[in-house]
This record gives sequence, C-alpha cells and structure tokens, in this order.
Amino acid sequence: MTGTLVTAVTAPPTALAETSELLIDVGQNRNLGEWRISSDDWDPASRIKWSVSLKTLHGGRQEGVQVLEVDNGRMRFRVVPTRGFHVWDAHSDDIRLGWDSPVQEIAHPRYIDLNDRGGLGWLNGFGGWMTRAGIGFFGAPGNDNGTPLTLHGNIDNTPASLVEVSFRALPEPTIVVKGIVNETQMFGPALRLTSEISTPVGSASIRFEDQITNLKGIPQEYGNLYHTNFGAPLLGKGAKFIAPVRTMAPRNARAVEGMAGWSDFAGPGDADYTEQVYLAELFADADGISQVMLKSPDGTKAARMSFDLAGSPYFSLWKNEGPEGTGYVTGLEPGTGYPYNRSVERAGGRVPVLQSHASARSTLQVDLLTSAAEVAKAQAEIEALQIAEPRISNTPLVP
Amino acid sequence: MTGTLVTAVTAPPTALAETSELLIDVGQNRNLGEWRISSDDWDPASRIKWSVSLKTLHGGRQEGVQVLEVDNGRMRFRVVPTRGFHVWDAHSDDIRLGWDSPVQEIAHPRYIDLNDRGGLGWLNGFGGWMTRAGIGFFGAPGNDNGTPLTLHGNIDNTPASLVEVSFRALPEPTIVVKGIVNETQMFGPALRLTSEISTPVGSASIRFEDQITNLKGIPQEYGNLYHTNFGAPLLGKGAKFIAPVRTMAPRNARAVEGMAGWSDFAGPGDADYTEQVYLAELFADADGISQVMLKSPDGTKAARMSFDLAGSPYFSLWKNEGPEGTGYVTGLEPGTGYPYNRSVERAGGRVPVLQSHASARSTLQVDLLTSAAEVAKAQAEIEALQIAEPRISNTPLVP
Amino acid sequence: MTGTLVTAVTAPPTALAETSELLIDVGQNRNLGEWRISSDDWDPASRIKWSVSLKTLHGGRQEGVQVLEVDNGRMRFRVVPTRGFHVWDAHSDDIRLGWDSPVQEIAHPRYIDLNDRGGLGWLNGFGGWMTRAGIGFFGAPGNDNGTPLTLHGNIDNTPASLVEVSFRALPEPTIVVKGIVNETQMFGPALRLTSEISTPVGSASIRFEDQITNLKGIPQEYGNLYHTNFGAPLLGKGAKFIAPVRTMAPRNARAVEGMAGWSDFAGPGDADYTEQVYLAELFADADGISQVMLKSPDGTKAARMSFDLAGSPYFSLWKNEGPEGTGYVTGLEPGTGYPYNRSVERAGGRVPVLQSHASARSTLQVDLLTSAAEVAKAQAEIEALQIAEPRISNTPLVP
Repeated sequence: MTGTLVTAVTAPPTALAETSELLIDVGQNRNLGEWRISSDDWDPASRIKWSVSLKTLHGGRQEGVQVLEVDNGRMRFRVVPTRGFHVWDAHSDDIRLGWDSPVQEIAHPRYIDLNDRGGLGWLNGFGGWMTRAGIGFFGAPGNDNGTPLTLHGNIDNTPASLVEVSFRALPEPTIVVKGIVNETQMFGPALRLTSEISTPVGSASIRFEDQITNLKGIPQEYGNLYHTNFGAPLLGKGAKFIAPVRTMAPRNARAVEGMAGWSDFAGPGDADYTEQVYLAELFADADGISQVMLKSPDGTKAARMSFDLAGSPYFSLWKNEGPEGTGYVTGLEPGTGYPYNRSVERAGGRVPVLQSHASARSTLQVDLLTSAAEVAKAQAEIEALQIAEPRISNTPLVP
Repeated sequence: MTGTLVTAVTAPPTALAETSELLIDVGQNRNLGEWRISSDDWDPASRIKWSVSLKTLHGGRQEGVQVLEVDNGRMRFRVVPTRGFHVWDAHSDDIRLGWDSPVQEIAHPRYIDLNDRGGLGWLNGFGGWMTRAGIGFFGAPGNDNGTPLTLHGNIDNTPASLVEVSFRALPEPTIVVKGIVNETQMFGPALRLTSEISTPVGSASIRFEDQITNLKGIPQEYGNLYHTNFGAPLLGKGAKFIAPVRTMAPRNARAVEGMAGWSDFAGPGDADYTEQVYLAELFADADGISQVMLKSPDGTKAARMSFDLAGSPYFSLWKNEGPEGTGYVTGLEPGTGYPYNRSVERAGGRVPVLQSHASARSTLQVDLLTSAAEVAKAQAEIEALQIAEPRISNTPLVP
Repeated sequence: MTGTLVTAVTAPPTALAETSELLIDVGQNRNLGEWRISSDDWDPASRIKWSVSLKTLHGGRQEGVQVLEVDNGRMRFRVVPTRGFHVWDAHSDDIRLGWDSPVQEIAHPRYIDLNDRGGLGWLNGFGGWMTRAGIGFFGAPGNDNGTPLTLHGNIDNTPASLVEVSFRALPEPTIVVKGIVNETQMFGPALRLTSEISTPVGSASIRFEDQITNLKGIPQEYGNLYHTNFGAPLLGKGAKFIAPVRTMAPRNARAVEGMAGWSDFAGPGDADYTEQVYLAELFADADGISQVMLKSPDGTKAARMSFDLAGSPYFSLWKNEGPEGTGYVTGLEPGTGYPYNRSVERAGGRVPVLQSHASARSTLQVDLLTSAAEVAKAQAEIEALQIAEPRISNTPLVP
C-alpha cells in the first residue's frame, strides 16, 4: 500500500482492516533490529501522519536496549521490549507522562541485579512511566515461605519473546503494538504476559489490554501492578488525586502522618521526606470500570486512568514528595493487590490463583485531558461514581 | 575440498585425516558469528550428508545466545557455547533427548542470576538435556566455610572462550566440536573445562571427553556433574532405570518414601509431588567403564550412558515425577560426587583436589537404542556387570 | 587534516590546538563500535607515530566488551569503557603495568554479579591495572545501616555513557580520552564520574583528572579509590614501596604480623599466605601533591604515582604475596578513605559528602622510570617530602 495509492479521505474502509508485522519472535528466531513503518506505508489516505519505529539504544547502561517508538500524530510514546514491554515515557500536547528519576538511561536488564541492596535492585533501573510489577509476584522484598522475593518481581527486567505491530482501520484508525513476555523458572513461576498497547491515530489516549496465562499443569499464583508514575507537569504543589474511594487505609505509620491531605500534593519536600502509600478499593460503573485522575496544580491538565476492577481490584497511591532532583514522583497503581510482601498479601486474601493453562485479563486506559473544561467534566464523572461515603481507616491496613 | 571433488566411496582415507575451523577464540579475539560447514565442504565423498552450523538466537531471554547445531546425518543436537558448552537437546530417529521444562528458551547468562531465590537461580535457566554442574563446585546452595555457594555452580552460565569444529576421517568419519570454558575468579576457582563432544557420522551416539585443569599455582578442589535430563519418550509410566549398583542410599527422608520402586518410573504425579534422589556407586567392567540405561515404557527405546568411574565415581538418579507441564523429568547424573552442598561432600570425602596445573579427565558416551532387541542386548550387558548383590541402604546417606 | 597535509616539523602549532571525536554518547544515541585514529590523521607532522583504536572483544566473558587502545608512540594502554573506563593494562619500554590475575579475560559486567560470594563478586572480574573502586561507596562488603554493600561498589562494572578522544597540540602534544560514567539508582547513589586520561605523545606517563558530581538535589556521600595493581616486573622479592609517611597503621591482626617489613616485598609466598593491608596518611609538597613509588627488585625500574591529597587524602598499600599463579600482586591505592566497610569509614570521618550538584576533583599521575638514575632521583624527591618522623601504629587502625 506504499506510495502511489490515492484514496479519498471519505472512502469506506477497505477490506484490509488490519495490517501487521512481526518484529521479534523467539519461535521464528526473528529480531528485525531496526525497523520503521509509517502512515505512508500502511495508511496512505490518512491526513494524520503516524509512525512506529524499532530502534536500538547505545551508550552507558542503555547499550543494546530495543525501543519501539510510537507516534500516533499527536501522542508519542516509547515501549521497551527489552524491559518487559513497559512504557518508558509519553508526550502529547504539552504534557509529559513520566518523571525525573535519578535513573535517566533505560538500563538493559543485564545491568540490573534484582537481588542488589537486599532485594531492592529493581530500583536500580526504575525510571519509566508505566513500569509493570509482577507477574509471579510483586511488592516488598523479603522472605515468603522460604523464598526471598525481590522488589516488584521479574517482569520489568525480562525481554519480550514476541513483538508485533498492527494497524486497524476499524472501528477507528488505531495503532496496536503487542508484546509477549514469558516469566518462567524451573520450580518457580511459569507465566506469560500478553500485552496489547493501542492508541487511536491522532488521539491523546493509550490503552493496555493484558492477559496473564498460567503455562503450567498446576494452579499458580500471580500478580500484576500497573506501576504508573507521574512527575511534572501533572504533579506539583496543588496537584490532586481524584478517585471514587470505597475504602482507604494507610500502608504504615509513615502514611498515617499524612492522612489529612492524603489525596493532595504538597510539592517537593525536604531531604528528610520519606514515601507515603495509601491503599484503596474503589467504586466502579455498571460495567465494572473505575476511574481515577491526577489533576495538575492549575486544573488545566490531567491524566485520567480507567481500569476494570475485575482485573485490578486494588489501588495504591504512592506519594514520593522528596526534594526536586531526587525522584519527585507519584505512582497511581491499580493491581491485583497491594505492594506488601506476597506473604502479607496472601494472608490478606489478595494473591489470585490461575488454574492450569487459564488466563486472567485486565485493562487500563489513560487519557490526557488538556483543558480546564475537559478536566472538570472528567472530574464530575469520577465524582458521580462515588455512590457512598468512603470508609477511611486511620490505622495501617496491616499492623 | 568443496564442490567439484569426486571420490569413489571406497577410496582409502586421504592423508587429510582431520580438518578443522576455529569459530571462537578469545586469544585471537575471534567470533565468527554465523558459520556453516557440511559434508559437501569437508567430506564430499560421504554418502551421508552432515553439517555443523553456528547460529545466533533471537527474542526473549534467548537474544544473543550462540548455538552450534550438529547434524551427523542421523542425529541432531545443539551445543550452546554461550552456556558452558552444554547440550540443550538432541534428536535421533523418533527419540528426543531432552524434556519439557517450564524454561523453553535457551536463556542467555545475562538473564540468569545464580544468587536469585536464595541461591537457586541456576533453575531460572534450567531446561537442557546435558547441562553441566560445576566446575568449582556443584550441588545444593548454602554456606560452605563462609562462602555462600549457589546451586550447581557457575560453569553452565559461563560462555566458552574457544570453540573449534573438526572432522576426522579415521578410524571412522566423526564430527568433533571442542569447547574451552574458563571458570576464574580472584580468590576463588581458577579452573578450565576442555570438552570434546564427538559423534560418528550416521550414528545415534554422542560422546563427551572432558578435561578439567587447575590454572592455579596451588592445589584446588573441583567438581563435575553430568546433569543429564530426560522426559518423554524415554521417560513415562513404566520406564525403568537399569544400572549395576554396588551401593545405593536415598538422599533424604523424601527419597526414603520411594525406596520400593526407586528404579521404576510411575508417570506424572500430582501437584504435591516433590523430587526424590538416589545416590549410588556402580560396578564397572575391566576397563573401569560402567553403564546405565533409561528404558522406555514399552522397552523399544533406551538411552545407554557409559562412563569411566575414575572420572565419575558417583552416580545420582534424580526423579521429578510431578504433573505434566511442571517439568516432568529424570536426571541420570554421573559425577565426582553427590549433589549435597560441598561442605557435606567434603566431609564425605567426595570433593577431589587437583594439584597445581594438573588435569582430571572424564568421559561419557550416550547411545540411543531403537529396537526391543538392541535394548534387551544392552540391558543384558549392564546386568552382566552386576557381579555381586547391591548393598542398599534404607536410610539417607547423610542423616 | 588527513593525508596530504605536509608540515615542517618545526612549524608553530596550528590554530587547531584540539581535535576530538565523540565515540560513545548516550545523549546522541551514538556508539561508533570500531574506530581508529592515528597521528597520520590528526597530527601528520609528528615524528612520533601514535594511534587510538576502539575495538570490540570476542570470546568467553569478553564477548561484547569495548576497549580503547591508546598507543602514544612509547606507551600503550587499554581503557575499558564497558568497565567504568578503567585501565586494564599498560606497557612501556620493558615495563608492564598490570599483574597476573586468575581472571585473564576482561569480563563484561553482564557476567559479573557483585552480590556473588556474599558480596565479593567484584573479584570475579578483577584483573586490571587501574581499577576503580566507588563511587557511591567502596571497601569491604557488608551491612551499612541496613543496606548490604558489595565489595568496592558499582563503578568498575558500569559502562561509560560518553567516550571522547581528543588530541591537544599545546602545551605539548597530548592524547586525551575522556569518559563519563553514571552511577544512578532510585533511592540510592546518583553520581557521575568524569574521567580524563591523558598521555603526552612519546612519554611514559599517564595522568588521570577525575571529577565526581552529585546529580541529586540533596547532599550525597561518595567515595573513590584508585585501586592500582602491580605484578612483575616491578613487583618481586626485594621490591620496595617508598612513600612520605605521616601516619601508618595496619588494617588488622594479619597486617600486624608483617609490620617489620611492611614496605618491603618478600616475593611469592606459600599457599597459606593471606593478604596484608597498611593504611597511611602521607606528606605532600607545597602544592598538596604527594608521591609514592614502587621500585623494582634491582632498582632499575619504578612506577611513581603522584596525586593531590585534597582529592585522595588516604592511602592503602595492599600486599598479596601468595604463590605465583594465584594472583601475586600489590595495590597502591590513594583514595577518599580506607577499604573498610563504609559504616566503619563513616565512623572514622572518612566518608566525604558532596553538596547538591557539587563536584569533587582528584588527580593521579603515573610515571614510569626506566633507569637506576631516574629511580634514585625520584626516590630522593619522595624522601625530601618526609619532613618529620612517621607516626607508626603497631595496632590496627580499627580494633
């Protein structure tokens, strides 16, 4: 479809409703390395120019990392096959989805030792926007029934075994990138993440449709946390977290200290600041979809996150309001549980089990709102989900 | 010798009895990357077509792994220079040497952290047929005299420093691949594995001739375990392990439970199954060669393993008869000792020492038997080695 | 300036006093891979032929390591961008700067697990001449305030984010290679090493000008140890360490045993030998520059090290006189502190702090002396710095 094809912009969709290319596939021993497709190739009638590029990064701890750059004509984001198919950052209009981590390079997993610093090594490569925690387990490091777990699990440092790029003309022109990441060990997890990340051409939206599959002949525990992280311009003094809260409890004594303004952001703090986490169950609409929002200080920008409670029944708000230049950030984190150690989560009934060869699905959509009117409208929609008073605990969920 | 050379098949062997190519050599800063040789190149008179290829794997945790594919005209097997020159799998006739691990990709060592899971990280990449444990140490993880050892040591996740492919016309046409793997640390092991893997053209046999060399100016302990793993079709309900047992003891209380049928296979078990290990010393022939066999359920197929007791005086049978799809497997493991922690092995007198710059040799040959008659004949040969009653202990070797 | 330019050797320096090329730069996603420049290209009038080459190593644990080979016409040395921009070895005249480690390959960081052997994994890749310990911390492994530190820190196993090669005509023709290495973690160090390594054309000198920068918005501790290691021909029975010692104390009871001849070398010892470390503060000249020397057994060769005490106020002499073939070596190690665990160093007031976005500078120059006369003259200069009796402690600095 390249080059000479001329189509009226009102032409009916062609029969060719989906075009795709396999970029990486362990089964075919395939890795295209450098690759690029654009609207000129796959969607020449489009007035909006879009493209998808596979690139290899160089220098420092980035050496050899493969990145998939998606530009839908309005929003640009970078998916990282080498790092569990996570999304490092996104830009649209004047909004950046991401934050200023001390970790500026997209580090290759070969430079990340998850067992470093007593199991906190995940933080040595932590700097992305939508980093995933899981999928065998996630949460705090430490002993679970004889096994020393590392912070947030393996998936964020496991390279994708399959990467496919597709374009769907219907129902609206949409770019889809699909990744498969296998987390497998003998006498350990044997799980598969299949993640479809889609974005309508010309939109300020990104959508995750994920599936976790048990590859084993026996039931297995699993876990998934969308560790979605925001700095400026959405975060700052006066920013607000808005959510239809059903229950909320602080994670620990440190979080108790901040209960009064738990959903408000105070701006960068001093060097003594330590993180605070708030643990919530949310209300949803009739379809089981809940929504939360991070609203910018001036109320003219926001990121709205929509997700199904069936897939992500628990929500964690991570506030890390230390000084600028130390990783000032907040995390909005829907997931299968809270980020305690799995042993605590299991005791709390928040570790789901997949039957043999069964799959669990979850979705997450992020929409950028770029005017005060859009933000106010979305906020009203979220507030409408608040059908009862929130039940707020002033003591930690787990003593 | 490529292409146009025509030789009568009955021609006497040429003077050129051996041809070879150096594929990888750290001393010459050489790595050919992609390379292939075939009988057309080196043995054009051969009626049996054979080939050897060096390839690079792509996708997932395989990215960048180099594999040497050997096809002797009847048997195909894959040697992995990037993974300690182990053999990932082999196929001949309708027999597969290998098993269905949850780990399906040949993971690059950069994705394997041996210290993961409290020292069990070796299992994160465990899925091959003849994986080697050693060579500084092997066996259970844990403290040995102040050093926390990891399961089965470093060699299986160390890349080869030299890889050479040779063809020998005499005494029979044989393909030989040689690898050198250095396991060296300051204030730690400094040992070299030199492994020659050979296979006669058109045969269903593979032979390992190995040498471990002390690179240091002082005596050093070492260890070598041929961790040779089998699934279907040789393993299954009704399969049998046949060996000329001199002594045998269970590894622990769990193995004691299975003493009655310790050499029989019951087929895939339930989710509660945990592994059983039986520890044996064997009888040998006049040349010091012992033999064992894994016989398929219907008795028409078998793998016979022959090895010198001087190099491998101890034998471990690892039974892991859990459910299908969880790594149903048995390991037939000749070695310098048993897979207890080295501290236990040293106390038991099973940790050999190499004098300065000395070498130890060991051999292992695996022959596939593909008819009931062949199997019965080989079984009789093994049984003939049983020159006295086995001494069977009903209590664990180490309390 | 390549090729046809002809200049009289006495021509005045051109306006083009510095030429440079960026080889690796994470900001520009640049890595030239293979690259070479020579005096014919950048300095065609030079009677001394020099060159700088960027190469990739192959085989074993070297696979993929990038090395910068500098040949100034007299001295050759190898800088390793993949390994924290350290210097693996140097050769000039008949002197080798380096030693015979059991680790002969320049191992890629992906094969080094710093947490191996209870935090001693740094030793698994230890074999270079000027290896750097730091820069978040260095010294003995073990718990520091809840964080388990690994031996000698991360910088030696972190790849450079920027590598630049320059040639300066003035004040004397000099080759300069510059590296930037970032050591950054969330909730951990965020420090940058900028190291300029320079060598005048035709000289037997190499100079390090280093800067460590705090990338954070808050004060941070840091540490730097020039772990500079020598074997034959400078080290051997009868070699001497010469320094203007102000104070000296043994590290531990083992070092106390060797107090009598602490600055003399006895030659390779027996298998029971264990290392000895002596901790010193030195005198300096009016500019704050101190000097030490390792003098060869016959007194005809030496390496002189000059460094500013402001950057490196503490000096450690590491003696490891075990048997040949086990890593017979001595380390001359100026640094910000001594190689105890950071918790000990902090208690001793030897852990410096950098204010937000501040930098600390340090310099180290190594000159090779190649005649008895040169050696004697340099020794006299060092002895002239000894303006008072050394204060020698016979008990360990830290009980």
